[in-house]
Amino acid sequence: MFEFIPPGTRFHSLPSPFAMKYGKELHSARIAFETWGTLNENRDNAILIATGLSPNAHAASHDNNPAPGWWEAMLGPGKPIDTRQWFVICVNSLGSCKGSTGPASIDPSTGQPYRLTFPELSIEDVAETAFDVVRGLEIEQLACVIGNSMGGMTALALLLLHPDIARTHINVSGSAQALPFSIAIRSLQREAIRLDPLWNHGHYDETSYPAAGMRIARKLGVITYRSSLEWDGRFSRIRLESDHPDEDPFGLEFQIESYLEGHARRFIYQFDPNCYLYLSRSMDWFDLAEYADGNIMAGLAKVKVKKALTLGARTDILFPVQQQEQIAEGLRIAGAESTFIGMDSPQGHDAFLVDIARFGSAIGNFLNDL
Amino acid sequence: MFEFIPPGTRFHSLPSPFAMKYGKELHSARIAFETWGTLNENRDNAILIATGLSPNAHAASHDNNPAPGWWEAMLGPGKPIDTRQWFVICVNSLGSCKGSTGPASIDPSTGQPYRLTFPELSIEDVAETAFDVVRGLEIEQLACVIGNSMGGMTALALLLLHPDIARTHINVSGSAQALPFSIAIRSLQREAIRLDPLWNHGHYDETSYPAAGMRIARKLGVITYRSSLEWDGRFSRIRLESDHPDEDPFGLEFQIESYLEGHARRFIYQFDPNCYLYLSRSMDWFDLAEYADGNIMAGLAKVKVKKALTLGARTDILFPVQQQEQIAEGLRIAGAESTFIGMDSPQGHDAFLVDIARFGSAIGNFLNDL
Repeated sequence: MFEFIPPGTRFHSLPSPFAMKYGKELHSARIAFETWGTLNENRDNAILIATGLSPNAHAASHDNNPAPGWWEAMLGPGKPIDTRQWFVICVNSLGSCKGSTGPASIDPSTGQPYRLTFPELSIEDVAETAFDVVRGLEIEQLACVIGNSMGGMTALALLLLHPDIARTHINVSGSAQALPFSIAIRSLQREAIRLDPLWNHGHYDETSYPAAGMRIARKLGVITYRSSLEWDGRFSRIRLESDHPDEDPFGLEFQIESYLEGHARRFIYQFDPNCYLYLSRSMDWFDLAEYADGNIMAGLAKVKVKKALTLGARTDILFPVQQQEQIAEGLRIAGAESTFIGMDSPQGHDAFLVDIARFGSAIGNFLNDL
Repeated sequence: MFEFIPPGTRFHSLPSPFAMKYGKELHSARIAFETWGTLNENRDNAILIATGLSPNAHAASHDNNPAPGWWEAMLGPGKPIDTRQWFVICVNSLGSCKGSTGPASIDPSTGQPYRLTFPELSIEDVAETAFDVVRGLEIEQLACVIGNSMGGMTALALLLLHPDIARTHINVSGSAQALPFSIAIRSLQREAIRLDPLWNHGHYDETSYPAAGMRIARKLGVITYRSSLEWDGRFSRIRLESDHPDEDPFGLEFQIESYLEGHARRFIYQFDPNCYLYLSRSMDWFDLAEYADGNIMAGLAKVKVKKALTLGARTDILFPVQQQEQIAEGLRIAGAESTFIGMDSPQGHDAFLVDIARFGSAIGNFLNDL
């Protein structure tokens, strides 16, 4: 129903049934992915990218879809992730609405969308499906797994569950467990959707859609994805040209409000609300400490890679840089040659998408040294 | 209608008509206030407290209302604001629903609540009404004006508009202008209320009330009033005793969610939604730079006091400590003996309400030295 699949997407069929962490199983499920570059003869130059909550698998343009991707400046010939050297795979997360099976997909047993009958989704499930895509491409070991934001969680889960799946790891603005501030933000985003009467316990359609809830959820997302430092410089107190342009006494007045409104409008009808709820909750549940009797450093110490780079922005309030320092330290304890770089990017959690000068050079240097 | 007036509240009648900054006027309006201690013969031992958005004038217990106030630990005999020495006045803001005239009050010209016909409200209006209360008590000059959060804005406006009204000033977690991150948060809180169909353009009542919008607004408030640092230590990933206690698949699961829910439930029906909208917007509009051709430091330089103390918490994301540093610097340029103290309190913007060890000793020391 509300699925949004870019042209040129490829699909991988998951084993059927596919068992989920919390006990249920999926039938005839699939994962959307895209690739760039060429797998070499040894099949050892592959890089996997695990994404944040909302992106599709279209990280960058390619012959089958020339539209710019969400990491266009990072990925391509001569770019930091250089597709002349690497075979790059980006997977759309299980539970998403961008081509992979999720709550907006048709349940083959009923012929109707899953909606809230979709099984409880975990980050580990997302990781297992990415693993299955890699195996489906007949790749024994990745040169590197890169994960951004939620994808940083997915990558850690993948490395923990499949210790030999990758030689190296780049964790970008990720975390090894959800902490209460980010849980609070995500819980409130979900509540805004659930409180919208048009959400209707997941039974919305094109004519009756929880746009108000999605609007609040997205604006709250954007507020926590950026930083006050960036906005002080970018928007300050600049007003829109006419006060109260929509003739509403409490309507848009400042540029910052118009910026949030633009982001919301581009998102509301481009992401399925139920998928949003499932993916958001999977992040709250994620905790590597589960695998080590509640000890997060011991959990990280079970993640085996030869070499790791962990990056974060010092202005990130959603995945604060202390969480990336923790990942780097844990991987060092686990035996990796592990580097942490905290960036002075003003753009907060989203810095990896826009501050390519800082994030691109760090990632490019790491990959060039492999 | 939705007015909540503590017992023992006193009232001051404003001049009628009372002219508002943005051009309209109020008739037969009043301000709620409470006092502690005794005004001395010289009438020069008075301290005025200007509050944040939501508090009433009941800052502490007194004979006419023994219930603890919102700053109980700060104010009283032998406490940092020692009522054996000082005559303390706390005013409820114009536009509030705690006894002062506001959108929930009856418009004498119609006999109906003002709702959205209440005039556009500014921080300067709040300051002018506080000034009128002080004059009504026949006080020529205050020993000190103390403002917290929004009250820090009110205090600066009062000092700018009435240069001799106070000898000294304590600004607590305030700011001299609203910046885009806090505007974004408040704008989203207002939007959550406005998007609730039961808000009905301000025409709600007891049986049809925008509880969902108020719930989202309040939870977002609490998230930005505290800090991730405090919550990491206090809540971590602790779960409620039973998962999904309300049998809702996306219901409360973590302690942090239950904490937010408790705060929301205590607030939703205790604060009038229209009053919330008006007071919230008045903060977005506040900008001392308006008085100095857009130069914030020049605006602050027009605020005349002999001695000033500016306090803030380093974990405050809503009124970041840089804004308190700016106030202190501006008052120094203006000629005050001006001190800034950035506290390492973990509790964020709310630290002044709970970290009495730090904030109380700073305020007590400053007042003792007068």
